[in-house]
Amino acid sequence: MKLWATLERAASLYPELVALIEGARAQTYPETLRRCERLHAYGASQGLQPGMRIAVLAWNGIEFFELYYAALRAGLVLVPLNVRLSAAELVEILRDCEAQMLFADPVFAALVEECRKQLDALPVCWLGRAPAGSRMPARDGEYERDALLCAHPIPPVRAAGSDELVHLYYTSGTTGRSKGVMLTNRNVATHALGAIAELQLSDADRWAHIAPMFHLADAWATFAITWAGGTHVFLPRFEPLAALDLFVEERITITNLVPTMLNLMLRHESAPDRDYSALRAILSGGAPIAPTLVRAIQETFRCTYIQTYGMTETSPYLTLSVLKHHLRQRSPAEQFHYSARTGRPFATVELRVVGEDGREVPADDRSVGEIRVRGDTVTPGYWNRPEETRAAFVEGWLCTGDLATIDAEGYVQIVDRRKDMILSGGENVYSTEVENALYAHPAVLEAAVFGRPDEILGERVCAAVVLRAGAQASGAELIAHCRTHLAGYKAPKAIEFLDALPRTGTGKIAKRLLRNPG
Amino acid sequence: MKLWATLERAASLYPELVALIEGARAQTYPETLRRCERLHAYGASQGLQPGMRIAVLAWNGIEFFELYYAALRAGLVLVPLNVRLSAAELVEILRDCEAQMLFADPVFAALVEECRKQLDALPVCWLGRAPAGSRMPARDGEYERDALLCAHPIPPVRAAGSDELVHLYYTSGTTGRSKGVMLTNRNVATHALGAIAELQLSDADRWAHIAPMFHLADAWATFAITWAGGTHVFLPRFEPLAALDLFVEERITITNLVPTMLNLMLRHESAPDRDYSALRAILSGGAPIAPTLVRAIQETFRCTYIQTYGMTETSPYLTLSVLKHHLRQRSPAEQFHYSARTGRPFATVELRVVGEDGREVPADDRSVGEIRVRGDTVTPGYWNRPEETRAAFVEGWLCTGDLATIDAEGYVQIVDRRKDMILSGGENVYSTEVENALYAHPAVLEAAVFGRPDEILGERVCAAVVLRAGAQASGAELIAHCRTHLAGYKAPKAIEFLDALPRTGTGKIAKRLLRNPG
Repeated sequence: MKLWATLERAASLYPELVALIEGARAQTYPETLRRCERLHAYGASQGLQPGMRIAVLAWNGIEFFELYYAALRAGLVLVPLNVRLSAAELVEILRDCEAQMLFADPVFAALVEECRKQLDALPVCWLGRAPAGSRMPARDGEYERDALLCAHPIPPVRAAGSDELVHLYYTSGTTGRSKGVMLTNRNVATHALGAIAELQLSDADRWAHIAPMFHLADAWATFAITWAGGTHVFLPRFEPLAALDLFVEERITITNLVPTMLNLMLRHESAPDRDYSALRAILSGGAPIAPTLVRAIQETFRCTYIQTYGMTETSPYLTLSVLKHHLRQRSPAEQFHYSARTGRPFATVELRVVGEDGREVPADDRSVGEIRVRGDTVTPGYWNRPEETRAAFVEGWLCTGDLATIDAEGYVQIVDRRKDMILSGGENVYSTEVENALYAHPAVLEAAVFGRPDEILGERVCAAVVLRAGAQASGAELIAHCRTHLAGYKAPKAIEFLDALPRTGTGKIAKRLLRNPG
Repeated sequence: MKLWATLERAASLYPELVALIEGARAQTYPETLRRCERLHAYGASQGLQPGMRIAVLAWNGIEFFELYYAALRAGLVLVPLNVRLSAAELVEILRDCEAQMLFADPVFAALVEECRKQLDALPVCWLGRAPAGSRMPARDGEYERDALLCAHPIPPVRAAGSDELVHLYYTSGTTGRSKGVMLTNRNVATHALGAIAELQLSDADRWAHIAPMFHLADAWATFAITWAGGTHVFLPRFEPLAALDLFVEERITITNLVPTMLNLMLRHESAPDRDYSALRAILSGGAPIAPTLVRAIQETFRCTYIQTYGMTETSPYLTLSVLKHHLRQRSPAEQFHYSARTGRPFATVELRVVGEDGREVPADDRSVGEIRVRGDTVTPGYWNRPEETRAAFVEGWLCTGDLATIDAEGYVQIVDRRKDMILSGGENVYSTEVENALYAHPAVLEAAVFGRPDEILGERVCAAVVLRAGAQASGAELIAHCRTHLAGYKAPKAIEFLDALPRTGTGKIAKRLLRNPG
C-alpha cells in the first residue's frame, strides 16, 4: 500500500468528517488532500524532484501533517528536525541529507537565520508569515500565500515505490555524529497497518498529537489514524493543562505520550475528577516508566495503559504491553504486572532475545540477552553510512543494543539500555556526544557523562570531570560551554569534580559506579 | 512478515492455548508447529525442494491447516484442490502445476486412483490410513505413520521471500481452461494483516472453518487467526445442524460462510432460540445474497452481518460492508441499507470504478463502471499464462470484470457480474466451459449457458440448446453427458430446447433474454 493512498482512501470514505483539528481550525480529509496537491505543485514549481530531501522545523500542527502527506504525493523524502537542536547540529543534518528546502515555523526564525549563515543557498518556506525584519531571499516563500496558492499545475501522483525512501529521522549516534535513519514506504505503511491491528484503531478514534511529530513516538499515528479514518487533534506545544483540556474537550480516545508529560499532567491540580470517559487507551514510551506512574494513569484516566518500546530504526514499535485475552482473566495484580512490562512483540516484528553465545535465551524471565529484530518495519540502514549500517545487523537481524529478559508468556522486560545512553525527558542523550563537548573545553582532562534518576525527566544528564593540572573551571562554566555546542537538553545539569575517574578491570570507565556512588 | 513466522509467533505467545479443535481432537500452537517441522522433514526426505508444488485434496481439518504451514516452512508452493472437480479436471491441474506430491484424504481414494491412471509417477501421502485394497506404490505414505514420524532431520526454515510464490489456486477460466492464480507471501500476509485490522480480530476470537479451506473465502483465516492468536475450529464437511451445533458448543465468535450455507442453517428447525451469545460477526461472500437472508441472519444470530466481495486473484477481499462509525448513528433502516451493500474498499486495496471512457465514474450510486484494483494483495498473475496475465491488467490495475456503482459514502454495489459467470452454491461456473461440454455432444448445434435465481444455490446453471437437424437428445441425456466431463455443480440443472438462440444486434447471444424470458 502506498502511504499516499491512505489519504486518498480517507478523503473518499470520510468526505464530510472534521478530520484535522488544531485549536479553532478544522479541516476535512478532502480539503487536506487538495492542500497537499497544491503543496506538491509548489514543490514542482521550485524545482523539487522525486527523491530529493525536504526538511521540516516545526511544532505539531496541520501544516506538519500536510507536509508529511504532500512529500509522499511528490515522492520527496521528508526530514523532520528536532526543534531543540542547536544551529550547528541542524546545519550538520541539513548538509548530510543535502536538503533542498526547509519548511520552518517563524518562531524558529533566529535559529534558521543562524543556520543560513552556513547554508546560504537553502530556500525556506515559512509556515506562516515570514519573520519581520528577516532578509527574505528570492527563493523563500510563505506557506499560505505562496505554497497553497501556487498557480503551477498539479502534477500527477509521484509516490515512491514500496521499497523507496520516504523519511529520514536523524538520531545522535554513539559516536556523537548525527546519522539519518532511512525509512521506506513499506516500513512506515507496515507499521501503520500493524498498529491499527494491534490497537484496534478505527474511524471512531480521536488521536491527540501531543508528543512531537518530529519523533516517531507520535509521527506513526499520522498514517495509522488516517488509514483507519480517525480524527487528528493537534496540540502545538506540550503544556500540562492544555493537554488535559484537550483530552476532555476534544474527547480524545487514544494517544501516546512520554512519561515526563504524563507525570506533569497527573501532578496538575486540575487532573482529577474530569470527564475522561472518551479515553480508551494511553500509550507511553520513549523512556522507562515507574510503576507508581502507571498506577496513577490508570486511576486518574480510568482507561487501559499500554507500555510501548521501540526505536527510530524500527518505525518505531517493537513491543506493546497489550494484555493477552487469557491474562485478562487473572487477578488485578497479575494484570498490572503484565501491563507495566516492556511488552510482547509488535505484530509485524520478529523478535529474539539473544545471549552472548548467539542463541535465544530461555523464556524464564531471568536470562538476559540482547533484543534483535527483523521484519518489514526495520530500516534498510543509515543514510550514506554503509559501515554503520553493516555494523547494526547480524545475519539480517537488527541489534538493538537493549538488554532484556523474556518470560513464559512472551513478555519482554528491558533490564539495561544500550550502553551509555541516557533517556531524559523523552529524548535520547548519547554520553559520547556530551563528553566530546566537555573535552572541547581547555580545562577538561577527562569527562564521563551518565544519567541519574529524576522524577520529572526520567533521567538527568550528569557529568564527572577531571580538570587538567593547574586549570580552573566551575560547573556552571562547563555547563554553559556545553550549551553553546549542544541542544539544551543534552547539556549536563550537574557536574562533579573528581581527582580520577573510576575504572573497571579492563580499564574502561565504570559508569555504573558514577551513577550509584558508594 | 513471513507467513511462517505467524505460527512461530503464536507458539511463543500462546504456548498453552488449545488453538486447533476438530471434533474431539485438540492441539496447541507449539504442538502444531512441531508437527509442521516433521512434515517439512518428511518432504525433504522425499526430495521436495523449495519452489516445488504440492497439492492437497481434502475437506477441512487440522491436517489441511498443517499442510498450509508446513509448505510455508519448507518454501513449497501449496496447490489446494477443489474436491468437487472431476478426475479429468484434477489431472489437468496437477499436470499444469507439475505437482511433485499429492496429500489426499482417503475418502477420495477412487478419484485419486482415477487420476493416477494418467499420472502414474505422482506419489500420494494419505491423510489417514491408505485406502484398503489400493495399490500402494513405494513412494506413497501415510500422514501419521510416515510423515509425522519421519526420522529425517528437521531442516532449517526455508520460507520463501516476500515476493515469492506460496499458493496456487486454480480457477476455471472463461475459456474453460483451468488457470492457476499465483499468490505470494506478501499477497497472503498483507491480506491477513488487513483482515485483522478491518475485522478487529484478536486472541479472543474463535473462527469456524466451515466453508472449504481449498477456497480463499475461508483459507485466508488460517493465517489471520493464527497471527492474531485466536482459535481455529474445523468442521470437515458442511451440514446445517453440525454447523449450528458448532456455533453454540465451540462458542464461535466469527466466521465467513457462503449464502447457500447460511440459508440452509437458518431454515433448520433447530436454528432459533439457541445461545449464540459468543457470535460477534457473520461474514458472507462468494455469491450475491438476498436482503431477506441478511435480515434473517441478524435476527436469528443477533450479531453483526458483514457482506464481503472478492476474488481469488485478490487474496480475496476487495470490499467489506463494515459500517463506518458515523453510519452507526443513523436509523436502523439506513444501517441495514449499508450492511447489505457489496461494501467499501478493503483496507489494503486501492479500488476504482472505471467507466468505458477509462475514467472513474461519479460516486452517485447510479453510474456504472468496472471495478479495478491494485495493491499488495493482488496476484502477480496466472501460472505459466503470460498472455492471460497481461490481459487481466490495465496500467497496473487488475480488471475484475465486475460492474458496479459507488455511492457518496464510498460503498460499492455490484450490478452485474463478470460476463457469463454463474455463481452456484458458492462456486463460480463459467458458461463457456459448460457450453464446450454441451458442444462435445454430437446432437448439439448451439448451446448457451446461463444462471437462473435459486433460493438455495443462489443461481442454478441452465442451458438453452438448439439441436442439429434430425438429431435427437433428451435434457436428461445432455445433463448426464455434461456430468462425465465436468464437476457435478457445473452441469446444467435444466435444459430448454429452442429453434434458435436469441441474438443481439451485433450477433452475440443475448443471455439476458434467456435468463429473463418474455
